[in-house]
Amino acid sequence: MTPQTPGAGAQPPHEAAADPVVLPTSRSDRPEAGHGTRLDPWLGSYAERAHGMRASEIRALFAVANRPEVVSLAGGMPYLEGLPLDALAEMTQHVIATRGTTALQYGSGQGDETLREQILEVMRLEGIDAHPDDVVVTTGSQQALDLVTRIFINPGDVIVAEAPSYVGALGVFRAYEADVVHVPLDEHGLIPAALEESLAALTREGRRVKLLYTVPNFHNPAGVTLSAERRPQILEIARRYGVLVLEDNPYGLLGFEGEPLRALRALDDDGVIYLGSFSKTFAPGYRVGWAVAPHAVREKLVLASESAILCPSNASQLAISAYLSTCDWKGQVKAFRELYRERRDAMVSALAEHLPGASWTVPDGGFYTWVKLPEGLDAKAMLPRAVTARVAYVPGTAFYADGQGSDHMRLSFCYPTPDRIREGVRRLAGVVSGESELVSLFGATVAPRRDDVQQPGPDVT
Amino acid sequence: MTPQTPGAGAQPPHEAAADPVVLPTSRSDRPEAGHGTRLDPWLGSYAERAHGMRASEIRALFAVANRPEVVSLAGGMPYLEGLPLDALAEMTQHVIATRGTTALQYGSGQGDETLREQILEVMRLEGIDAHPDDVVVTTGSQQALDLVTRIFINPGDVIVAEAPSYVGALGVFRAYEADVVHVPLDEHGLIPAALEESLAALTREGRRVKLLYTVPNFHNPAGVTLSAERRPQILEIARRYGVLVLEDNPYGLLGFEGEPLRALRALDDDGVIYLGSFSKTFAPGYRVGWAVAPHAVREKLVLASESAILCPSNASQLAISAYLSTCDWKGQVKAFRELYRERRDAMVSALAEHLPGASWTVPDGGFYTWVKLPEGLDAKAMLPRAVTARVAYVPGTAFYADGQGSDHMRLSFCYPTPDRIREGVRRLAGVVSGESELVSLFGATVAPRRDDVQQPGPDVT
Repeated sequence: MTPQTPGAGAQPPHEAAADPVVLPTSRSDRPEAGHGTRLDPWLGSYAERAHGMRASEIRALFAVANRPEVVSLAGGMPYLEGLPLDALAEMTQHVIATRGTTALQYGSGQGDETLREQILEVMRLEGIDAHPDDVVVTTGSQQALDLVTRIFINPGDVIVAEAPSYVGALGVFRAYEADVVHVPLDEHGLIPAALEESLAALTREGRRVKLLYTVPNFHNPAGVTLSAERRPQILEIARRYGVLVLEDNPYGLLGFEGEPLRALRALDDDGVIYLGSFSKTFAPGYRVGWAVAPHAVREKLVLASESAILCPSNASQLAISAYLSTCDWKGQVKAFRELYRERRDAMVSALAEHLPGASWTVPDGGFYTWVKLPEGLDAKAMLPRAVTARVAYVPGTAFYADGQGSDHMRLSFCYPTPDRIREGVRRLAGVVSGESELVSLFGATVAPRRDDVQQPGPDVT
Repeated sequence: MTPQTPGAGAQPPHEAAADPVVLPTSRSDRPEAGHGTRLDPWLGSYAERAHGMRASEIRALFAVANRPEVVSLAGGMPYLEGLPLDALAEMTQHVIATRGTTALQYGSGQGDETLREQILEVMRLEGIDAHPDDVVVTTGSQQALDLVTRIFINPGDVIVAEAPSYVGALGVFRAYEADVVHVPLDEHGLIPAALEESLAALTREGRRVKLLYTVPNFHNPAGVTLSAERRPQILEIARRYGVLVLEDNPYGLLGFEGEPLRALRALDDDGVIYLGSFSKTFAPGYRVGWAVAPHAVREKLVLASESAILCPSNASQLAISAYLSTCDWKGQVKAFRELYRERRDAMVSALAEHLPGASWTVPDGGFYTWVKLPEGLDAKAMLPRAVTARVAYVPGTAFYADGQGSDHMRLSFCYPTPDRIREGVRRLAGVVSGESELVSLFGATVAPRRDDVQQPGPDVT
């Protein structure tokens, strides 16, 4: 989404047929593309960690991609039109009218106790048995990622993560100067043998591996799910190497078939920090997520959170709490599952119809499919052409810490309607086909590689 | 406030006369007092920066101090009973009903553009002329403190700050392993000659001074205001030494007499990062603050904020925006000024009546007075006795990075009613008088000193 004009997020995208898309023409039009200019009088004052902070080169493209005429298969925005807005409005009115002096006041650094109890109910659906004291409410689970990294990572420490991995987590890890080592996944998720091999090699090299970061369910961006069989294996390996598991699970309840899998945290109380969020199962605009952590870790998280923001918003927490206690939140999750399943179906059938030279994952839940382009194509190099053709995606390089991924793209099916998804894939197919012709005539396109991930902005959630 | 029971913040404190206050008896009752135990399996995994994170010893006392029978002169909670809750409830209802899919969606990392324009109007009252692009909306100004420190401070860098200084800022500075060097203030605020002397000495020592952190208006905790005469002098000195000024101004509009002073940022666009907040002038529960920074610094702040939280809450921002556009916010600020002036008057007249052996500042605005105890008394050592006598304050040591301040305490007059303030000061006088007798009999009390600030929790804002 990146900088939205007010109200823009509220409108379903629509076509403005005659409006041509004009791309930013030069780097100098985009001051945010650089990480400092000769005009910055404070250039010499930044901390080491700030040198890695720069806007990604695709950021300006995404600003264009947010225009209504572009079908964005790039963002991770949930589709909120299905929410009962009038009921939510009444509910919010009631919260302020009856509990206003609490909702508008500072609150506890750890989060509202009633909400923490309700979060236990949510997590029980994935087999997690916890105590309200174990829960820390955060400003979206992104803040939890930040806090966990803050309390564990010294510069140069290693975080092991899937290949590919969530771009927002990679951004946090880079901000704390962690070294990310990617471990392959397949259609059943992270591969235990590959994890073991990586940890053994890192141990031999004397590296300090602090965390295993994983998105076990409906992976962002890969769309795969860690199988039930592999879960205890992954935990056993992590335990053996003394590595804390960071389980990031925003999509776990959004499976299209059957019951949710048991969370890693449900299998191991002491070795896992679990991150949850209401952003995908309800709404991101309140910025309410949470962490469940072993006791001593939880204490540090609370202190770190108080240092970072004093306390999470009571207004947001009480709204979420009222939603959970007065609305049919399980029915809403079910409605989202059906909505996103229909869009997944539209996506994969359109891919089969229009992109026969590519391959892709067929996710059992969540928001994303991971597409491997036909041989020789570079997703990043192709992006400007795609945006000109009024379709946007996230190039695979965004999801690696080491410049891999140029042959992949992430396609999101969460926000556009099925018709728009089909239209977007058709446009994409035109671009791919044009690129393929160029490649067959002139050889592979090459985009400049970077050895670190850049920050594409909050749209790529 | 620290961990609140739901709804507790909504109730004005009242007396439960017969209820004795029982203090936590031993350290082992308070697991949060330590920074890790032998039982923490991850003790060896924490980052260096996490070793400084520990709950303060006074934290458990504050949990007790939140009981209704205790007059808390400790917290920095604004008094919200005066807000027009029904109108705010209607307003919130309208925001969700009419702009729900924006309010509940992800937003821009920099913050809602309309709100950023409205923030310019607020700042214009202090002479600030800025552009909406210069503003970054944050999760309370605490997050802005965190982000500024994150992008500028390497471990060992120096931050110069007033003596005393805001405890929440000191906590952030410690979290990033800055060295805080205190510079004295007097009744006219930070002393220019002392600043010059400190910077000269630090330069001679080869230290890297990155920031001057200052609360120019109605200082927390000192209650003093930087005079108009000194403002350009301070800026000139900072500029000469290449030090960026971090102007933290949550209370600037809450002066009891006359017009707001011109902000430091109004006098210098390039050398100042300005932090503002709606927490004291409206309500902290939405967690909306902001930073205004030089262009290149602002870009880094946005990237750092996206890494930390993706984006601030649209629900909160749209609520604040609606408040500013539909309610008489200037009238509300005026009402707060009158309310707090009356409480300041109650505080200083009670001090004059009951604590003749002490001295204190008489603030022209804001929430706090800074009290110097009679010779030989130690505010931290005395605190358990005070809480037993059903009155709480924050010992002066919380406001120094170096263990100074044991002869001072901060008294807040923002939250309790004038009657309760008088009652609180009377109780305090009883404690002081008892302590003074002990001192005259047995010599000065001594509390254990620490060479770093500990984190007392979000109540000490």
